[in-house]
Amino acid sequence: MRDFSPQVMAKRNYIFDTIRRSFQLYGFEQIETPTMENRETLTGKYGDEGDSLIFNVLQRGDKLSKALVNPELKAANKSDFDEVAFFNKNVSNLADMALRYDLTVPFARYVVQHQNDIAFPFKRYQIQPVWRADRPQKGRYREFYQCDADIIGSDSILNEVELVKLFDEVLSNLGMKSFSIKLNNRKILSGISEVIGRPEKIIPITVAIDKLEKIGLEKVNEELSQRGLSADELEKIQPLFKIQGSNDEKLNQLSSFLKDSEIGLKGIEETKFILDTVNSLGLNKAILEIDVTLARGLDYYTGAIFEVVSNEAKMGSICGGGRYADLTGIFGLKNMSGVGISFGADRIYDVMEELSLFPESATATTQVLFINFGEKEAGYCLNALQQLRAENIRAELYPDASKMKKQMKYANDKKIPFVVMVGEDEMNSGQLSLKNMESGEQTTVDISKLISSVNL
Amino acid sequence: MRDFSPQVMAKRNYIFDTIRRSFQLYGFEQIETPTMENRETLTGKYGDEGDSLIFNVLQRGDKLSKALVNPELKAANKSDFDEVAFFNKNVSNLADMALRYDLTVPFARYVVQHQNDIAFPFKRYQIQPVWRADRPQKGRYREFYQCDADIIGSDSILNEVELVKLFDEVLSNLGMKSFSIKLNNRKILSGISEVIGRPEKIIPITVAIDKLEKIGLEKVNEELSQRGLSADELEKIQPLFKIQGSNDEKLNQLSSFLKDSEIGLKGIEETKFILDTVNSLGLNKAILEIDVTLARGLDYYTGAIFEVVSNEAKMGSICGGGRYADLTGIFGLKNMSGVGISFGADRIYDVMEELSLFPESATATTQVLFINFGEKEAGYCLNALQQLRAENIRAELYPDASKMKKQMKYANDKKIPFVVMVGEDEMNSGQLSLKNMESGEQTTVDISKLISSVNL
Repeated sequence: MRDFSPQVMAKRNYIFDTIRRSFQLYGFEQIETPTMENRETLTGKYGDEGDSLIFNVLQRGDKLSKALVNPELKAANKSDFDEVAFFNKNVSNLADMALRYDLTVPFARYVVQHQNDIAFPFKRYQIQPVWRADRPQKGRYREFYQCDADIIGSDSILNEVELVKLFDEVLSNLGMKSFSIKLNNRKILSGISEVIGRPEKIIPITVAIDKLEKIGLEKVNEELSQRGLSADELEKIQPLFKIQGSNDEKLNQLSSFLKDSEIGLKGIEETKFILDTVNSLGLNKAILEIDVTLARGLDYYTGAIFEVVSNEAKMGSICGGGRYADLTGIFGLKNMSGVGISFGADRIYDVMEELSLFPESATATTQVLFINFGEKEAGYCLNALQQLRAENIRAELYPDASKMKKQMKYANDKKIPFVVMVGEDEMNSGQLSLKNMESGEQTTVDISKLISSVNL
Repeated sequence: MRDFSPQVMAKRNYIFDTIRRSFQLYGFEQIETPTMENRETLTGKYGDEGDSLIFNVLQRGDKLSKALVNPELKAANKSDFDEVAFFNKNVSNLADMALRYDLTVPFARYVVQHQNDIAFPFKRYQIQPVWRADRPQKGRYREFYQCDADIIGSDSILNEVELVKLFDEVLSNLGMKSFSIKLNNRKILSGISEVIGRPEKIIPITVAIDKLEKIGLEKVNEELSQRGLSADELEKIQPLFKIQGSNDEKLNQLSSFLKDSEIGLKGIEETKFILDTVNSLGLNKAILEIDVTLARGLDYYTGAIFEVVSNEAKMGSICGGGRYADLTGIFGLKNMSGVGISFGADRIYDVMEELSLFPESATATTQVLFINFGEKEAGYCLNALQQLRAENIRAELYPDASKMKKQMKYANDKKIPFVVMVGEDEMNSGQLSLKNMESGEQTTVDISKLISSVNL
């Protein structure tokens, strides 16, 4: 897990602030949920692999004593001992809570719990860390931030349009010059498996199609055949792989491929609505692209599926999202359709770093440092300091009367652009010596000139 | 643990933003440390009671299996079984990490770990949640935010002056009209126990004195006597309880009380410097008060001690802090003196709520809602929406063409001040119908008039 230094924090805040501002501009309101949820709120929601990546929190006090000192532990060395059962049972005895694994499940729990206080459709955003006990590797961390915006309680496809615009707004504002918002629809994927006569095979078929770009057509066909598609069915699916051209051309080809699937055509209709509406509004830097091989989060998405990739830096998907017909059903609130997107702050950070997109102002820190020449001079500077701060200028006085070299090094290390020196002469004349650290230029100014110089 | 609704989050952000802005104005830079630290980084730092309040994180995978299925567990039911030893040993086998208990220890760990990358004196701030397995009660939560600012690597008392100013700045900016910054010094407390001839009794003496306001003089004397002070020693301490008057008067009385204690007089000198310097600069709404009974964090504070209380609301201390001569020694970096303060965001929230100090702008959400009359009208509104957002106006379109009443209720629930209606007429004329939700007034405007009306 990572410490964030001042320089890194400043850049991270630049990302979070940009995202937050756009979320608010689009009418989303912030919530926060606790770091720890009851264990049973999280378990069983992310599949077996997900479950194994959840961080569990140990019981405390008497309950922990009881869990540790209990007769069942005697069984641990008997020959007919069932290790897995023992393990599972003991984890649920030992751990009552678990750390947030994503923002979606706690959000669903929140909506159900507070349903009577919420104005639906509920447009909420949430920017908080989540934890996964993954093996750490480049671009994957055990603690990382998710930035989610969801609209829940509305079936309208206008929400999808708004979210596409929101992707465009945020990433353009962050300075990205070219990125693709890939668009697919779970109904199109259902249509495909229906058309080839194997609706029950939607998941293996989609998983195989998803690899087209990575492993090529031949390998995909091999995999489809291994996964149980007959030669006849394989032939039926081939036109799908030839779909190409502009979005409209893709939609036309897809329409004829899916002409006999009601659900498939519904997916095309939704996709066309999103495309047409977004096109009529225009996009800033984003390119909106239909991608029928896109298949993320298949477990719960039921309509539109989004994924965003940078066209300037190699870095997998930096954002994602989609529509789900039933997010809150697991917690007892049925028929709550929603659509949401998530910005991957850490990957966005890496892309921005690679492309040098952070503006200098993002990491600006103290603007003016007062050099400390001793007690009397420092006292004089404190007054000036106070006047600068009243003008919203970030300013500080070096606290010790250390050697000049040390104080200047501090200004350099902290990248402070202006240094002010006040000695006997300056105190007598009421003037200040101002050094511009970039140009090296040194001038004598009064306090109002100092304020205007800094604000230039 | 708590969920935070949009209204509450908006108010919390108002507090955090105000604190953050002042921290930056004073030259502090933000860091963040991970939620989880290695268990041994935290244990043994907060006393036995603190240790028992730490949330531990269960091992995962093979290590957990090994911890659970091990021969030692067989011992659990033998007659000579040592439950405490078993318990401690097993917790350290079962849990490798623990949740941040405060921001101070992780900060000390951070400074030692990154000492070569830090420009000292290091002025850092940190705003993050911490966790304590306390029994929840009013004003005390298991997950709560701390907002800390520390200067480490400088002995200068100017830092204390800056921190007093920072308390004043933040709490005045939050709208508090009267609050006291109580000031004491660990050296004064040492001096007191020295003067009565029992320097080794500093802690019991201080703990008793600390209760003066709560339990009265008689009970304090009883307690001091129970804690081992002789009649003679008790008599020696009595002048301390009669100290009163202005800060200067208090300091004078204290000086004569502590005249034979070198360390005590040093404490007075430091306190006088802080008082005089702060007085020459002036304070906004704060009252700076010497309080010789103040004794927080005695375990590691070595100089100035601060505590802030509201004079308008009953709520214990809302901020605290002090100087420590050696924060990083436990992690192997000696002689690193520092001074820091902490804002208790949750208590500040409660005080502000009680005193109705949150401005309306703090909870402002969407400024303009477009009513949805159907697909064609909605399409028209999307364009207007886009123009408002380009002017930084927070605006949204109700996503479904629901009944008017439902849409208006949504605007009311979300406290949206302006509602725009666009029907056939408006689409033809290029005008919009604007309803001011507070006055009820309805006008016909074009888009630029709409923008100026909202920005009024």
